[in-house]
Amino acid sequence: MSSAIGERVKLSVFGESHGEAIGCVIDGLPAGIELDFEKIYKDMSRRAPGKDKTATPRLEKDLPKVLSGVLNGVTTGAPLACMIENTNTKSGDYSNLMTVPRPSHSDYPAYVKYNGYNDVRGGGHFSGRLTAPVVFAGAVAKQILAEKGIFVGAHIRQIGSVCDTSVDYNDISLELLERLSSSTFSLVDESREKLMRQEVEEARRSLDSVGGIVECFAVGLPVGIGGNMFDTVESKLASILFGIPAIKGVEFGLGFDFADKNASEVNDEYEIKDGSVATVSNNNGGILGGMTDGAPLVVSVVIKPTPSISQKQRSVNLQTMENTELEIHGRHDPCIVPRAVSVVECAVALGLLDLIL
Amino acid sequence: MSSAIGERVKLSVFGESHGEAIGCVIDGLPAGIELDFEKIYKDMSRRAPGKDKTATPRLEKDLPKVLSGVLNGVTTGAPLACMIENTNTKSGDYSNLMTVPRPSHSDYPAYVKYNGYNDVRGGGHFSGRLTAPVVFAGAVAKQILAEKGIFVGAHIRQIGSVCDTSVDYNDISLELLERLSSSTFSLVDESREKLMRQEVEEARRSLDSVGGIVECFAVGLPVGIGGNMFDTVESKLASILFGIPAIKGVEFGLGFDFADKNASEVNDEYEIKDGSVATVSNNNGGILGGMTDGAPLVVSVVIKPTPSISQKQRSVNLQTMENTELEIHGRHDPCIVPRAVSVVECAVALGLLDLIL
Amino acid sequence: MSSAIGERVKLSVFGESHGEAIGCVIDGLPAGIELDFEKIYKDMSRRAPGKDKTATPRLEKDLPKVLSGVLNGVTTGAPLACMIENTNTKSGDYSNLMTVPRPSHSDYPAYVKYNGYNDVRGGGHFSGRLTAPVVFAGAVAKQILAEKGIFVGAHIRQIGSVCDTSVDYNDISLELLERLSSSTFSLVDESREKLMRQEVEEARRSLDSVGGIVECFAVGLPVGIGGNMFDTVESKLASILFGIPAIKGVEFGLGFDFADKNASEVNDEYEIKDGSVATVSNNNGGILGGMTDGAPLVVSVVIKPTPSISQKQRSVNLQTMENTELEIHGRHDPCIVPRAVSVVECAVALGLLDLIL
Amino acid sequence: MSSAIGERVKLSVFGESHGEAIGCVIDGLPAGIELDFEKIYKDMSRRAPGKDKTATPRLEKDLPKVLSGVLNGVTTGAPLACMIENTNTKSGDYSNLMTVPRPSHSDYPAYVKYNGYNDVRGGGHFSGRLTAPVVFAGAVAKQILAEKGIFVGAHIRQIGSVCDTSVDYNDISLELLERLSSSTFSLVDESREKLMRQEVEEARRSLDSVGGIVECFAVGLPVGIGGNMFDTVESKLASILFGIPAIKGVEFGLGFDFADKNASEVNDEYEIKDGSVATVSNNNGGILGGMTDGAPLVVSVVIKPTPSISQKQRSVNLQTMENTELEIHGRHDPCIVPRAVSVVECAVALGLLDLIL
Repeated sequence: MSSAIGERVKLSVFGESHGEAIGCVIDGLPAGIELDFEKIYKDMSRRAPGKDKTATPRLEKDLPKVLSGVLNGVTTGAPLACMIENTNTKSGDYSNLMTVPRPSHSDYPAYVKYNGYNDVRGGGHFSGRLTAPVVFAGAVAKQILAEKGIFVGAHIRQIGSVCDTSVDYNDISLELLERLSSSTFSLVDESREKLMRQEVEEARRSLDSVGGIVECFAVGLPVGIGGNMFDTVESKLASILFGIPAIKGVEFGLGFDFADKNASEVNDEYEIKDGSVATVSNNNGGILGGMTDGAPLVVSVVIKPTPSISQKQRSVNLQTMENTELEIHGRHDPCIVPRAVSVVECAVALGLLDLIL
Repeated sequence: MSSAIGERVKLSVFGESHGEAIGCVIDGLPAGIELDFEKIYKDMSRRAPGKDKTATPRLEKDLPKVLSGVLNGVTTGAPLACMIENTNTKSGDYSNLMTVPRPSHSDYPAYVKYNGYNDVRGGGHFSGRLTAPVVFAGAVAKQILAEKGIFVGAHIRQIGSVCDTSVDYNDISLELLERLSSSTFSLVDESREKLMRQEVEEARRSLDSVGGIVECFAVGLPVGIGGNMFDTVESKLASILFGIPAIKGVEFGLGFDFADKNASEVNDEYEIKDGSVATVSNNNGGILGGMTDGAPLVVSVVIKPTPSISQKQRSVNLQTMENTELEIHGRHDPCIVPRAVSVVECAVALGLLDLIL
Repeated sequence: MSSAIGERVKLSVFGESHGEAIGCVIDGLPAGIELDFEKIYKDMSRRAPGKDKTATPRLEKDLPKVLSGVLNGVTTGAPLACMIENTNTKSGDYSNLMTVPRPSHSDYPAYVKYNGYNDVRGGGHFSGRLTAPVVFAGAVAKQILAEKGIFVGAHIRQIGSVCDTSVDYNDISLELLERLSSSTFSLVDESREKLMRQEVEEARRSLDSVGGIVECFAVGLPVGIGGNMFDTVESKLASILFGIPAIKGVEFGLGFDFADKNASEVNDEYEIKDGSVATVSNNNGGILGGMTDGAPLVVSVVIKPTPSISQKQRSVNLQTMENTELEIHGRHDPCIVPRAVSVVECAVALGLLDLIL
Repeated sequence: MSSAIGERVKLSVFGESHGEAIGCVIDGLPAGIELDFEKIYKDMSRRAPGKDKTATPRLEKDLPKVLSGVLNGVTTGAPLACMIENTNTKSGDYSNLMTVPRPSHSDYPAYVKYNGYNDVRGGGHFSGRLTAPVVFAGAVAKQILAEKGIFVGAHIRQIGSVCDTSVDYNDISLELLERLSSSTFSLVDESREKLMRQEVEEARRSLDSVGGIVECFAVGLPVGIGGNMFDTVESKLASILFGIPAIKGVEFGLGFDFADKNASEVNDEYEIKDGSVATVSNNNGGILGGMTDGAPLVVSVVIKPTPSISQKQRSVNLQTMENTELEIHGRHDPCIVPRAVSVVECAVALGLLDLIL
């Protein structure tokens, strides 16, 4: 079991949902980078719950405290450690989870793996709350990437049955990325927000939850980053993205839509454009042979509906080994997809930074 | 750039399609495992081209020569090195690729990354031929897993518009896995082979190629393998699977179908079955919170249509920086999906072995 | 640059001497280990300065605050994060080090590496103070090792010209290890303390400092831990030990004394002892072919005299690029060897735990 | 157990002394480096036995065959694999080692670790012969370093009681390094060869062997390579060097001689020299705070006397668990120190290349 990742930039995440604090150590950052903490807080607030009806009413300030690695707002090159204290926790809500595991949650395998010693309060180390330090780290990564002319932004591709409008993968503008990466409900076509919110509201009213897809873009990457065989951009990004709870699939460019296509339809031909080599289309999502090809990077992740729902569910009592039923009370998101947008952006930024340094 | 992967079992793959030899070193295998080389050759022949019309007519024996790590058919615990000599190579066919990159291939980013020094003959180190040592290593891994009661098998979920019948993810029998993992055209419903072959034949006649999806299962995994956050089973398997050329997406269980589902439809409830905890359904593909939950592991990958097609395509001349057209002659698969089945099985076996040791 | 180490147990250390806090994250600990915090504080106080005349008068409580990974005194299996707040810092003392590097210190190469952005106050991330989290982590490791019957203890082998009495490497008793690992001036022959303190006092009076050697033992290790070629016990321990500031050499068993020996003098022959295989002598320090051989592990490290001395030294002004002289005021240890004993014990424990899990 | 090492340049070594072949895969080399194979063979022949009376009479051509990664003598950027076939092996000599372990050899712990499945013929994977691929890889590394103005060379610092003359660590000339790195008996003062050979001859006549020390230098390293805490140049080099059989200690600069020194004697003061910052002395061996400081790198290793001697030795029978005696016949080096010089040079070069890329 490891909550650490990265080769050149190493991220080590710690904390349990209802413990003392959560946080992370980012090892390997370059020295001399002036950090804009307002931007970091912005990304963290995009992830934080309690903003609106799509999220849980739990209020947390999620204010990260930097412990090391920054002097006068500038990175020192030493490991950057940050801590977010846990406040406003209601552990009582989770008291019976130790014996009755929540369906589709980490509870049961964690119980077996840790012999019952893991902290189950609020999901413990498996809580979605642990994505907060990932966002912190990724928000730092974004700023370093931006200095190198690389920009990242994501949008809600789908919630339930409602899809955002599709984008020309070969033509992602900086303006779009800026808009997406500063929104709390990131959409290419903002008029879809209303329909999506209805989908979420419907789930809430049914004591249910709903899934979705987040699609992330990155532009400005030089050609030839990553490589064959096991150092592919896809491998690197997927291994970070699958570290985010609830993500069950990762695809690049057309992804699973490649299955019923012919090469003649989807091959990305080349042309000279403004004196440079350019792809005519970008079905491969900016990655060929595991390496960046100069076109915008396009990666999508599917997020399963949050398994914590208030409907009665079948489960078992791990002590008595009998069938039982479970009703989960407490505060739960009917849809975490809007909040996941900044997490995905930040995870992608971390992966790209590790590949580029 | 790295062709090495793994923590406990480290795989280092080498070779170029038209060089002296390809092969691999597998470091960290347990000592005392008696290897059945016939089974290994079987998996390698499932991957090898030239079996039928779906594959390239290039004949290669792909006979691996073991250089170390095995004494009298039993592993010694020292690194197991294997080499497959390259014969029957027709380099002339690729002579103009250095200047005119094939669309959707690694050619262009590799040209930039390696300043033109990479071996482009037959795709060099980026060739699909490099999956042969991965299959060798994975076939070894399968045998070690089998000793621990873990079995792996995959099928063609889709080629073009034709799908195999779907399986109950919660009820994967050993018999099915054995049949799938010993077939050269692995299907749950073997009657679909004819339709799929028609799909491929059609692509061939159009000088085109077609993509597909391979779905892989593993049974017998103990509960609690893998873990949060970046050591998830999903992260581990995805990082290996995305090392296989042409794979553009990886999903677990329902994968991207989770997007428009409610939790109440897809949550995997628990029940006591034969005295043990069991999931009632298996939409999560045997993984919860990044850990195995006792249900069969289900992972699917999408394989894009082989980009090497004989149709005329637009490309550029990297020397003159002018637009040009490209016709690729030579021997190319109109569909690599059937051959990819054993590669996916073997990559999954490698990942699982690394997680379990 | 990395302050992270370990494969199964990953340690990530953060902090700067005069920053907000120092600390570490230990990732990969088993769940269910009850920790005795008194013992941990004991080891930390053995390392802490201010105990007596051999150490700097700087008083620091060095009280670690556990942020995660422990619930009701028992490990949860999640990353164990600990933080030690920095108090009582006198940064003014170091104000001119930015321009005039201290001889034999990290100042100059760090200045070049970090373009002057590194935190130089108190040595920043290069401070010996950063060994406090290493001791914390190692003290935890010691307790997990003890549960497996493995015990670690070290002594001052030499300070200046005064040596401790030598030990029979093949006969290290638990009693000795317990005495050494709980002392603040660890010696086999405690009567040598007086002479050693005189050596240190002499250095102090001359505004100088003095070096020494720490020798560490571990007993209870099973046979066959570690391995060829780059996973040797020696490689693993050396890579951690050389992470401790001021250590300039690491040797196992006879170490450099092997140079002028014949094999017939130093080979460790075998005999059957109490029904088991045992070495007759232990010149190899318990390691053969990179693996433990059942005899006590013996590793020594040399610690150079602390470079911070109050005598006037030649240096350069990095701004004006002119020769200059430097007088370092402030609080400095004339000998860090006694304090280093627990650091070495803890580093060895960390390395052994990573090898054994 | 791992025979793989490196982060940016990954080396995976395989083979057993009397198996099919030994070799290695070097992953991560830059593309476009023209390799001078004559120089590589030269280094390999310096390591190879059979040159003179100090070495074993076993003749082996040790001619490496490159399998991939090189096209027309130039690196392609793909993994460079090389294989050395084993010929001229006399396995009979080692037939009883399986039951009676050689003192101070890997035999006994390997027997326990591998349950008797390891290949014991000629030491199997633990044989000193496995340093041949390390030399191959290091010889490649040397050439890449040379292109960056970095040069490596080592000498026999000591054999038995005879020492080479000492060198001013602050003034290592390129001429000296070139002479040392092309000699088969590398000495600063070549007149000491005769005395050293007498020492070896004496050991041979006594059916014994003798140890020694190899000291290695590197010049041309930029300031600031490596770093705190666990990425120190010392950690990196030690972890590779301790992978070489028979090495029992590693020290930098003065190393263990620091123990009885005062800082005022050994601190490396700074001065401006030819407009640049330079150390006045180089007792730290070119490394401060884990980073290069611009002075020549100085690292020494102690090599224990080869444990394989023809004198009768006490050992045990692992089958009957009874005491017995062992006489080792066959071909054995009375001193491997001269042959180890190129191995040390190459290991250091590999470590430096991994740090620098």
